[in-house]
Amino acid sequence: MHFTSTFEIPCSTFEILCSAPHVEWCVIANAKPSTFDEAVIEMRAAVGSDHVLVESDALAGHSCDTIPWQRTCSAVVCPGSRDEVCAIVKIAAQHRLPLWTFSKGKNWGYGATMAAQDGAVILILERMNRILEVNEELAYAVIEPGVTYKQLAEHLKSRGIKLWADCTDSTPQGSVLGNALDRGLGHTPYGDHFGNLCGLEVVLGNGEVIQTGAAPPDSPTWHTFKWGTGPYLEGMFSQSNFGIVTQAGIWLMPEPEAFEAVLCEIEQEENLPAVIDSLRRLALAGALRGTAHLINDILCLSMLTQYPHELRQGQQFLSDDVRRELRSRYGIGSWSLTSGLYGTVAEVRANRALIQRELKPHGKLTFIDKRELARLEWLIRLVKRTQHLPFVSRLVRLLKYCLIGREPTEVLELVRHAVALLQGVPGEFIVRFAYFKCRQGRPKSDVNPARDGCGLIWFAPVAPLTGKHVNRVLDLCRPVFREHGFDLSVSVIAVNPRSAVVLMEIFYDKADSAETARARALYEDLVRLTLRAGYQQYRANVANTHRLLEPIPHYQCLLDSLKTAVDPCGILAPGRYGVGMVEGES
Amino acid sequence: MHFTSTFEIPCSTFEILCSAPHVEWCVIANAKPSTFDEAVIEMRAAVGSDHVLVESDALAGHSCDTIPWQRTCSAVVCPGSRDEVCAIVKIAAQHRLPLWTFSKGKNWGYGATMAAQDGAVILILERMNRILEVNEELAYAVIEPGVTYKQLAEHLKSRGIKLWADCTDSTPQGSVLGNALDRGLGHTPYGDHFGNLCGLEVVLGNGEVIQTGAAPPDSPTWHTFKWGTGPYLEGMFSQSNFGIVTQAGIWLMPEPEAFEAVLCEIEQEENLPAVIDSLRRLALAGALRGTAHLINDILCLSMLTQYPHELRQGQQFLSDDVRRELRSRYGIGSWSLTSGLYGTVAEVRANRALIQRELKPHGKLTFIDKRELARLEWLIRLVKRTQHLPFVSRLVRLLKYCLIGREPTEVLELVRHAVALLQGVPGEFIVRFAYFKCRQGRPKSDVNPARDGCGLIWFAPVAPLTGKHVNRVLDLCRPVFREHGFDLSVSVIAVNPRSAVVLMEIFYDKADSAETARARALYEDLVRLTLRAGYQQYRANVANTHRLLEPIPHYQCLLDSLKTAVDPCGILAPGRYGVGMVEGES
Repeated sequence: MHFTSTFEIPCSTFEILCSAPHVEWCVIANAKPSTFDEAVIEMRAAVGSDHVLVESDALAGHSCDTIPWQRTCSAVVCPGSRDEVCAIVKIAAQHRLPLWTFSKGKNWGYGATMAAQDGAVILILERMNRILEVNEELAYAVIEPGVTYKQLAEHLKSRGIKLWADCTDSTPQGSVLGNALDRGLGHTPYGDHFGNLCGLEVVLGNGEVIQTGAAPPDSPTWHTFKWGTGPYLEGMFSQSNFGIVTQAGIWLMPEPEAFEAVLCEIEQEENLPAVIDSLRRLALAGALRGTAHLINDILCLSMLTQYPHELRQGQQFLSDDVRRELRSRYGIGSWSLTSGLYGTVAEVRANRALIQRELKPHGKLTFIDKRELARLEWLIRLVKRTQHLPFVSRLVRLLKYCLIGREPTEVLELVRHAVALLQGVPGEFIVRFAYFKCRQGRPKSDVNPARDGCGLIWFAPVAPLTGKHVNRVLDLCRPVFREHGFDLSVSVIAVNPRSAVVLMEIFYDKADSAETARARALYEDLVRLTLRAGYQQYRANVANTHRLLEPIPHYQCLLDSLKTAVDPCGILAPGRYGVGMVEGES
Repeated sequence: MHFTSTFEIPCSTFEILCSAPHVEWCVIANAKPSTFDEAVIEMRAAVGSDHVLVESDALAGHSCDTIPWQRTCSAVVCPGSRDEVCAIVKIAAQHRLPLWTFSKGKNWGYGATMAAQDGAVILILERMNRILEVNEELAYAVIEPGVTYKQLAEHLKSRGIKLWADCTDSTPQGSVLGNALDRGLGHTPYGDHFGNLCGLEVVLGNGEVIQTGAAPPDSPTWHTFKWGTGPYLEGMFSQSNFGIVTQAGIWLMPEPEAFEAVLCEIEQEENLPAVIDSLRRLALAGALRGTAHLINDILCLSMLTQYPHELRQGQQFLSDDVRRELRSRYGIGSWSLTSGLYGTVAEVRANRALIQRELKPHGKLTFIDKRELARLEWLIRLVKRTQHLPFVSRLVRLLKYCLIGREPTEVLELVRHAVALLQGVPGEFIVRFAYFKCRQGRPKSDVNPARDGCGLIWFAPVAPLTGKHVNRVLDLCRPVFREHGFDLSVSVIAVNPRSAVVLMEIFYDKADSAETARARALYEDLVRLTLRAGYQQYRANVANTHRLLEPIPHYQCLLDSLKTAVDPCGILAPGRYGVGMVEGES
C-alpha cells in the first residue's frame, strides 16, 4: 500500500504498514516492519496509559488548526519528564514512527499540533511545566517546555521578582520555550525570543541527551554565556527537527526604572516608508530598543471587532471608502505603531525627544506612562459601568474623547492590552483577532481559534528595514490579495535594527469552502511570488515549510546530511522546514 | 611508520606516508595512499606556483607562535578566490591532507598559523581581501577573510562613511572575519564579534559552497536577518572545523551623536567584586552598552613597559610591595576599567550619572570626551617635543600633572590608544604587551610577537558576571600562578550582561627553557583546575582545544557526527576544538 496525500511532500519512503483500530492508517517510515499497536503498548508502559491517547476525539483535537491544510495523527503522547521523552524517542526509532513534538501546540495559524504528514505520533510536552530556577541576580530563568507565558509572568509577579518575561500577543497559554524555538517575536527589548535562549538540554533522535554549550558538568555559565566553547549549536535546534528540547535557560529583562509606551497613528498610507526609515534610524541609534510593531487598518479592525461582511458592497473585500469610514469610526490610522521606551527616567525622556523629532511629522504620536495608563483604565471602567445609563454614558463618552481623543471603548481596551504586552504581561484580548471572519463571533475568554473553526494563515516574508523594501513587498502582495478576494491585513515588525518581518494574515471563513480554497491559493501564490523576488520567510506553517528550501537545493543537502547525523532513523518531524524528506538510511 | 608527537591528540588514524624533499615528513589522514608531491603539483596548478610554499623558511614562518607548543606544517597555500579554495579543498580531500585554514594568522597566543598536528597544509586567506559592499543605510559590510581591521577602518574613514567597525586591542593587521569566527571580543557595543556576523558563504569539506540563512538567491536580507529560515547554522562555523568561510556580512555601528570614554582606577583589590556587580547592573539596565574591560596592574604594566626582572628580589615573581611601588610610579590602580558611553548627548549624560553613582565609591573615575581627548593628544605631543629640554620638560610635566593627574607619558599614550579602541580605531600600541618578557624589548612598529620570539599564552575561563564568581576564579588561579613562579596578569571582560571572560595572560621568557616548561605546566594546571570547578573556556590555543571536550564525551560524539556529515574525509582542521579526532571513514 502506498502513502497517499493531497500534500506534496515527497514521502516515497513512507509506507502504510498497519492499521490501528481507531485510525485508518499509520504511516511508518523506512524499512523496519513493525506494528503500530506494539509501539502503543510500549509507549504506554513508558509514560503511563493515561498519557498515550489513540481515541478518535483526542486525535481529532490534535489534528486541526486555523490553516486550510489538514493532517490526522495516529496517537498523542504526553511524557512527564525528560527520561520519558528519551524512552518514547527510542520506541519511535525502533518502530520507525514519525514523531512530531509540540510544547503546548498553541501555534495557531502555523499548524498548532499538526504534523506535516498524516499518521504521525504527536508528542505534547505540556506536562513538563516546571520552572526550575529563576536567577534574579543574573536575570534568567530555567524552564521546561510546558511552562506558559501566564505561568512564568505570575511566578515572577507573585514572588516580587523584578524581572519581566517577554511574551507574544497570542494566548497566555502558549509555551515560552516552544515559541522561542520557533523564533517567535515579542514586544520588549527581549522580543527576539530565540536570541534570548541560553543553554538547552536536548534529546537527540537516538534518545541521547546533550547539553549545548560544551561546558563541563554543573557549569555556572550554562545559562549566561550564549556561545559556549567550540561550535555554537543551539541555532540548529531552532525551527528544526534535529532534537527535542526538554529544558532551557531564558534571559529575562530587569524591570526598568522607567517605561513609556509609544503609540503613533499614521493617517496617510504614503507616510509608511518614511516611518519605517525613522524606525531603522531610531533602532540603530539604540533609542528604540523594543520590538516595534506597525499594524495596518484591517489588522487593527480584526483586533476590535468582527469582519463587516455587510459592508462589502457585493465585492469580496472592503473598498477603500469603507476602510476610510471604519478608520474614522474607530479613530485609527492607516497604520498604527506600538513600541516601548525603557530605561532610567532621564534616558526615557531623552529617547522620547528623539522619537518625537523622527515620528511627529508622520502621524499622531501619544506616549503613555504609568499615570496615563491608570487614567485609561479608570475611564474604561467608568464607560463599562455607565453604558446602561444613556445620559451619563454620553457625558462619559465626551469626557473620554476630551481626555484620550479616541472614541470607541474597544480601542481603549486594545491600547490597554498593547501597553501591557510592552511590559511582558500576556493577555487573551488581542489574539481574538483570529475570530475576525468566524461567523459565530469571538469569545470573551477561553480563546482557541483552532477548536472554534476560525480561518487564519500567517504569511511572513522578511525585508530589510527600509521604507523602499517594505513597500516593495507590500506592493508585490497587495494585488495578489485583491485578486484572490481578500483584504490585505499586515503588521510590519522591526525584528532587529536592520530587518522587518512583513507579517500578513489571511483571514478566511472556514465554513465557506470556496473562500477556503481561495485562501489556500492566495497563500501559495504569495510564497511563490515573494521567493522569486528574493524575500525569504521568517517562519511558515507546517504544511508548507518544505517549499522554502526549494530554491536552494545545495543548502537542503547540507541540512539533510546534518539531519542524518543527529537523527539516523529520521523519526523526528521528518520534512519540517524541508529537512529529512529524502530517503532515510536503508 | 607511526605518527609521533609530544602533543597528546590521539591521532592513530594519521600515518606518515611520504616525505617531501623540504620537510622530513608529511602526515596524511586515513586510508587513501597518495603522495604529498602529487598534491603540491595539483595545488600549484589550482592557485599558481607562487602561492604554494614548501620552502623551509616559509614553513618555519608559519609554524610558530608565542605559545610553548610547536607544530611544523608541510606546505602553505594562499588561494586568491573562493573557487581556488574549493579547488584546494577537493585536492586535499582526494589526497586526505589535513588542511588548516587561517584568515590572516595573527591569532598570537592562541596558535597563529599553527595546526594542531605536524605536517598539515596551511591555508592562508590573506589574498582574499576585498571589501565587497558597505551598506551605509543598513549599517553592514560584506568582506572577505583577508580584510584587516586597519583596512576596514581606513575604507570607512576615507569615504566619509559614518559607521564604526569594532576592533580588538591586538594588531590592526588582524583579520576582521577570522577574529569574529573565533568569537573574538572588542570594545564598543558591537564588541561581540561573532554576534555581529550575518550571512556567511562557506566552503564545505566536499568542496561545495553554501550560503547560510536559507534565503533564496540574491536575497536582500542575507546580511540583515541573522536567524534566516529553518535551522540557524552560522554558529556551527564559529570556533569549528566544519567549513571555510570565504565571505560574510558584518554589522557596523552607526557613529553615535555623542561618545565618552569611562576610565576608572580601582586602588583596593577588595573593591573588585563590588565593581563587577556594578558592571552587571549597569549592563543589564542598558546603561553600559560597550564591552567593559577591567585589567589588573600586571597587565597594565605590560602595556606600558618591559618586565622589571631587576625588581624580582630573587623570586620568580614580583612581590606585593614591588607591585604597589610600580602602581604608584605609573599612577595606576590595582585594577583599571575602560568602557565607553554611546548615544545622543542627553543619553550619554544620563548614563554618565548612573555610572558615577555605581562606580564612584570604588575608584577614581574619569570621563573623556572629544575635547578632553584633544587636550590629551596636545599634551603628549608637547611632552615629546620638549623632552630634550630639561627645564621646559619639567614645566610640561608639572602642567601635565595638573591637567591630567597622571605622570608618565606612557600612561597618557595608553589612555589615548584605549580611547581610540573604544571608537573602533585599531592601533599597534597595546598589543606590544606580548613583548613584556622579551629580553630584546618591544618594537615601535611592525609588531609581530610570534616572529620576534615572545612568550605569551592566553587562558580564558568564563564566569557569571558576579563579583563572587569572578573572585572565585581568581582565587582558584592566583596560587597556581605563584606556585609555578608567575605573576597573575588578567583582564575581566564583560562579554554580555551576564558573563565575564576572565582572560589571563601567561607571559614567559621563551629564551629560558625552564621558564617555558613552567609556563606550559601552569597552563595545563589552570585548564585542569578550572574545568574541574565547572568553569568552561571561552577560547583556547590550537594545541589544547581538544582538552575542553574531555569532560563531556556525549557532546563530543554529537560534534563528531556533525563533522562527518559536513566533512566526510575529515580533512578540515582535524581535532580543532576536539572535533574530528576519532577514526574517519574507512
